[in-house]
Amino acid sequence: MAEAKVLSGAGLRGQIAGQTALCTVGKTGAGLTYRGYDVRELAAECDFEEVAYLLFYGELPNTQQLTDYKSRLKTMRDLPQALKEVLERIPASAHPMDVMRTGSSVLGTLEPELSFDQQRDVAERLMAAFPAIMCYWYRFTHDGVRINCSSDEETLGGHFLALLHDKKPSDLHVKVMNVSLILYAEHEFNASTFTARVCASTLSDLYSCVTGAIGSLRGPLHGGANEAAMDMIEQWKSPEEAREAILGMLERKDKIMGFGHAIYSVSDPRNEVIKVWAEKLADEVGDTVLYPVSVAVDETMWEQKKLFPNADFYHASAYHFMGIPTKLFTPIFVCSRVTGWASHVFEQRSNNRIIRPSAEYIGPEQRKVVPIAQR
Amino acid sequence: MAEAKVLSGAGLRGQIAGQTALCTVGKTGAGLTYRGYDVRELAAECDFEEVAYLLFYGELPNTQQLTDYKSRLKTMRDLPQALKEVLERIPASAHPMDVMRTGSSVLGTLEPELSFDQQRDVAERLMAAFPAIMCYWYRFTHDGVRINCSSDEETLGGHFLALLHDKKPSDLHVKVMNVSLILYAEHEFNASTFTARVCASTLSDLYSCVTGAIGSLRGPLHGGANEAAMDMIEQWKSPEEAREAILGMLERKDKIMGFGHAIYSVSDPRNEVIKVWAEKLADEVGDTVLYPVSVAVDETMWEQKKLFPNADFYHASAYHFMGIPTKLFTPIFVCSRVTGWASHVFEQRSNNRIIRPSAEYIGPEQRKVVPIAQR
Repeated sequence: MAEAKVLSGAGLRGQIAGQTALCTVGKTGAGLTYRGYDVRELAAECDFEEVAYLLFYGELPNTQQLTDYKSRLKTMRDLPQALKEVLERIPASAHPMDVMRTGSSVLGTLEPELSFDQQRDVAERLMAAFPAIMCYWYRFTHDGVRINCSSDEETLGGHFLALLHDKKPSDLHVKVMNVSLILYAEHEFNASTFTARVCASTLSDLYSCVTGAIGSLRGPLHGGANEAAMDMIEQWKSPEEAREAILGMLERKDKIMGFGHAIYSVSDPRNEVIKVWAEKLADEVGDTVLYPVSVAVDETMWEQKKLFPNADFYHASAYHFMGIPTKLFTPIFVCSRVTGWASHVFEQRSNNRIIRPSAEYIGPEQRKVVPIAQR
Repeated sequence: MAEAKVLSGAGLRGQIAGQTALCTVGKTGAGLTYRGYDVRELAAECDFEEVAYLLFYGELPNTQQLTDYKSRLKTMRDLPQALKEVLERIPASAHPMDVMRTGSSVLGTLEPELSFDQQRDVAERLMAAFPAIMCYWYRFTHDGVRINCSSDEETLGGHFLALLHDKKPSDLHVKVMNVSLILYAEHEFNASTFTARVCASTLSDLYSCVTGAIGSLRGPLHGGANEAAMDMIEQWKSPEEAREAILGMLERKDKIMGFGHAIYSVSDPRNEVIKVWAEKLADEVGDTVLYPVSVAVDETMWEQKKLFPNADFYHASAYHFMGIPTKLFTPIFVCSRVTGWASHVFEQRSNNRIIRPSAEYIGPEQRKVVPIAQR
């Protein structure tokens, strides 16, 4: 074996591990693009289904294509009976991301990807089914009801809210869900996406790739920052109290969730979008605490540390204003990011070599096995 | 962001992606070592439980430690009722690796890892439970019986055979299972282990890491080569027929499973071990076809291509002689490799930075969103 090369950055930071045509992150002039489009423009002008179509098919759909696409996805939302029975056996105390991971894995046993020719169908099936996986388990274990997993909602975001709340969502809420799902859809070689690509590189099936990616997104260093931000901001009753608390946390060097980013250094382009919608939702519900508290935290962090809110920070209050339980925040991320994960799997498959790096050995020298009686 | 560095090898081949004290692969003088011990010595002298202990605790156990360890693992073999009910809902037609992946994920919802202090307990629970996960599903869906998931067998390998065949296994079979589980336990930064480490780097739970790793091992470029080898060799009725067929396959440049290796260039140290046991098993069952066919394939591959059998090739006939259905070959790999995966997760957690490489962008230039009516 040739001598292996030691990479300069821990965690492969700044190292190119492959190619993608899906996304740029942190390039000059556009913070985040999907297939060349600025995510801020996509969030302003599109439904999430248009962005899913863009990621999966390479171009934005026209009106007819989008109508057909939404109709098709609508037929893929319900769950097989066996999957519902599995979800009923997962306790209410379970981590909701473990429910998503299990739902993806079980669906893979019931409707397997038998050939890579089916890859887009499987991706769309997972995307369409995830809101029901989340809400069927949640409503069964928390409210004791077996929900109907279909709805007439045109968009996935509206469908999710309808299943969760058992009523037709407002236009504003549907719009914010579209924005949110668009903002979270894709982000280059983040840890969960890279997990999906490593898995894909063994030529495993798409369910395995997505199941593994959910497991990685579950980690507190990756997904879950919006939940942690919510837990933090809802402790405080006024902007003044929040400011004092943040100053104390900074003094004690506590970790403050929802700020800064591994790749972005000046601002997170997703933040300016979701912040506007969080404010609109605050107005709608007549909030005088949570949004002002969020702004106070934001301003204090900038003033003290020049740290900016990332995509997760104002998502916390936005989701909260729509009545979404905090524990479902990260599962919503799955409903969105499955489009990015799957698109990366398609790319990996189209130009594959198994991802198998080397390790630097730091263990014991070679030694002889001592017979057990003499140990 | 600093300019990212383009790595020279596709699939991170030959690139150091982290440190490990667990394993060396392909170093001069010892093909494969676990914590400094040559795997051939471990396979000759140890039970699998000793090797699991070595990987998890850093040193081989003495007699008392091993006795205690086996007793403790014995108490962890049975499955929660809810998991059995889930396994009953997975169809007989499912890919057995999808069953293992789902079993791991479901157990994580029922017995979550609430703190990293529990990591060794969770790893041992998974290791102890995997034979029952595999056999409960297999016997329920294929034989229509709900098996007892406990057994009096002292070793995990013996326990697996007892659950599968519903009778006490012979000493020879128990020994071969120990050898096999030891040979497959650990192999540095292979794709499934690297999947587990990427997942661990987000500080996700151990069940997520193992579930993701199973998904990667499922891929035909990674696990599964022993199944493919079995499918190939059982077609042929004599060494002469096998030799003719191999020559034809080489002529047509067909892929021949079970030969060569991404890291080893001269021989796979695991092969010389399992080949001896495959021959002993052939003698035991009075085989006059499968083992001679295997040898003929081996000799022809070396003569024609200087390609050597890897760990998987003689595993095929060895497992077959013990009455193990071909579709369970890769799940046995899971029962073993979970020790390596978990040990790598422990290492990653002890010195962590999130694994988040960059990508080279090859997509469209930046472009404006065209309103849908004009597309």
